[in-house]
Amino acid sequence: MKNIAILGSTGSIGRNTLEIIDNLSQMFRVVGLAAGRNLELFLKQVEKFKPKIVSLDREEEAKELEQKLKNTGIRVTYGQEGAEEVAGFEENEIVVSAITGIKGLRPTLAAVKSGKKVALANKESMVAAGPLIQSEVCKSEAQIIPVDSEHSGVFQCLAKEKEENIKKVILTASGGPFLHTPLEELEEKTLEEALAHPRWKMGKKVTIDSATLMNKGLELIEARWLFDLEPSQLGILIHPQSIVHSLVELRDGSLLAQLSPTDMKIPIQYALTYPERENTRLPSLGLSQIKSLEFLDVEEEKFPLVKLAFRALEEGESTPVALNAANEVVVAAFLAGEIKFTDISVLVREAVENHQKREVESLEDIFDVDREARGQTRKIMKQRA
Amino acid sequence: MKNIAILGSTGSIGRNTLEIIDNLSQMFRVVGLAAGRNLELFLKQVEKFKPKIVSLDREEEAKELEQKLKNTGIRVTYGQEGAEEVAGFEENEIVVSAITGIKGLRPTLAAVKSGKKVALANKESMVAAGPLIQSEVCKSEAQIIPVDSEHSGVFQCLAKEKEENIKKVILTASGGPFLHTPLEELEEKTLEEALAHPRWKMGKKVTIDSATLMNKGLELIEARWLFDLEPSQLGILIHPQSIVHSLVELRDGSLLAQLSPTDMKIPIQYALTYPERENTRLPSLGLSQIKSLEFLDVEEEKFPLVKLAFRALEEGESTPVALNAANEVVVAAFLAGEIKFTDISVLVREAVENHQKREVESLEDIFDVDREARGQTRKIMKQRA
Repeated sequence: MKNIAILGSTGSIGRNTLEIIDNLSQMFRVVGLAAGRNLELFLKQVEKFKPKIVSLDREEEAKELEQKLKNTGIRVTYGQEGAEEVAGFEENEIVVSAITGIKGLRPTLAAVKSGKKVALANKESMVAAGPLIQSEVCKSEAQIIPVDSEHSGVFQCLAKEKEENIKKVILTASGGPFLHTPLEELEEKTLEEALAHPRWKMGKKVTIDSATLMNKGLELIEARWLFDLEPSQLGILIHPQSIVHSLVELRDGSLLAQLSPTDMKIPIQYALTYPERENTRLPSLGLSQIKSLEFLDVEEEKFPLVKLAFRALEEGESTPVALNAANEVVVAAFLAGEIKFTDISVLVREAVENHQKREVESLEDIFDVDREARGQTRKIMKQRA
Repeated sequence: MKNIAILGSTGSIGRNTLEIIDNLSQMFRVVGLAAGRNLELFLKQVEKFKPKIVSLDREEEAKELEQKLKNTGIRVTYGQEGAEEVAGFEENEIVVSAITGIKGLRPTLAAVKSGKKVALANKESMVAAGPLIQSEVCKSEAQIIPVDSEHSGVFQCLAKEKEENIKKVILTASGGPFLHTPLEELEEKTLEEALAHPRWKMGKKVTIDSATLMNKGLELIEARWLFDLEPSQLGILIHPQSIVHSLVELRDGSLLAQLSPTDMKIPIQYALTYPERENTRLPSLGLSQIKSLEFLDVEEEKFPLVKLAFRALEEGESTPVALNAANEVVVAAFLAGEIKFTDISVLVREAVENHQKREVESLEDIFDVDREARGQTRKIMKQRA
């Protein structure tokens, strides 16, 4: 029986994780839950899984929850500190880090510092603070198991392979809903169309990032730090069927690949059960029904954020932090209906081009850059409006 | 520096192995070579690689060779005993077992009994004597590394995976030269057409086996014993591009796959360098140039030997021995221009259906069944002629 805390329990990854735990209730017990503002769903989760500590974003909902949980002995807390407290709760054995955006960074770091197994779905943490997180992993002997399907695939393929044998790591991208949309029609694409991902059911932010391919860009940077690779060892291939999640090219010419149906339960469960595997109730992947797996290069003109992410990957230091911050601000504006789809890449690029690269050595440095880049991005957005 | 002996050095696998050793001459030294009757090529190999012991099929060529190698100190021997002596030579560290057909069984066993690392390309040994070979592996602590591209792929994917996690192993088949030939046109296919494999450059026997898909049938049985699987855990998919060599389905719904360009040097080199990998001079696999990887089910009516091999796989005991023996005899007749392409499956099936299944417990039992099945097959061929 392993004790699990879930950061971001009402999001897509969080809900899937709880379903898995429900199926494998003889193996896992929920001891901590942290979420944002969805009090209604959160209350149901707390009542069902009976954790020992919970946290919500704001004091307001937390107080309401505390009322409802009176006499249960469940500790209710809130805010960044609350999420960090859940992440670092001493009874945790596994922490699922699934808060979206840079907001997940402090709680992820708290989990890592506690030396536990961290199932990492919060890619923005790794993008902004990869070296910092990895240096804490070394100190605390925590273990990070990736939850992103692509990185889970790489992790599985890398089993037993020595670092010197790895020539290249290729992440695949479905290409999102606009893969076959002509460039000139992109401008008119609505929020609804951008949210209609052809393969994956995911949260809104990552779904928009998938439509712009920024998601793959962030994943490149994440992979760099997760697997200790050089920028030149990373590549992207469009693979519309989303069956092959990643490929690892070895120096003798062999490639290992991981395939699975497009269901996030598979990589999430693997992260929880690793190094073991457990049955899932999913049907087998029928390759002869799927018939064909296609692979294409990225059209850089249509998806300019990929090139920008490669640039940030190569530049390093504060550039990935600024890239991620600008993207978070711009995607939020798109989700709020304030800008057009094609504005996303234009604005993010302008923000990154305006950013003055500098060293980032501490969490404070990272949050400084993040704040600054957000401010700059908002200014650029205002100027254009 | 590792000492290598190659059984079957003038064949396709043997020649490729020597090329690899030539490229990695700082790592490997040839100490033994055994071949059939190609004295001219063998002499060149011996002069270049300067082994300590060599063997040819027949006394006649061996004597001629001995004359030519006078005063070199190289021991020249011949016949089955000669090949076994090369296989069991005490200075060997790796034995590449690449004699085609059941003829390779005794030398393979000699290599296994000597407790060395055996790079196994001779699938017929495993088909006929899998349990016997594996029991010798246990006794001698030899290690078998598969050379067949499909089995090398499985071996690479299985790294670190526990037996209980393996749901299914799928070997892919290119489908050979007649994949898209209508059933009714198969009868007229010539030897030349059957030898024109679209993907792989291989020896004649295995090329014909690829055209009938018997090769995949033999590989199924080989995989059963190599990886200790139940018949129900094995499957075949047609994959015309021959890029994905095999897939391992795990119980959580993930599949791991191994991909590489269709060059036998990759799996051969891996078997030699395992658990390390070394650079090859081959270009990277460009998946976006290949564009599409297709997967199809086997058309059983067109390739009836696949079903027959599944039957032999399930029946076990002497049936795989008889299947292999009948196939060797019939393919030899096809290569000699004595029968039509479609006769191959008809004759092999008739021979296997006539065979009385019985237990095989020793090498003698296996050779008894082999002899009997060959006799029966020849009789059936005569009756039909």
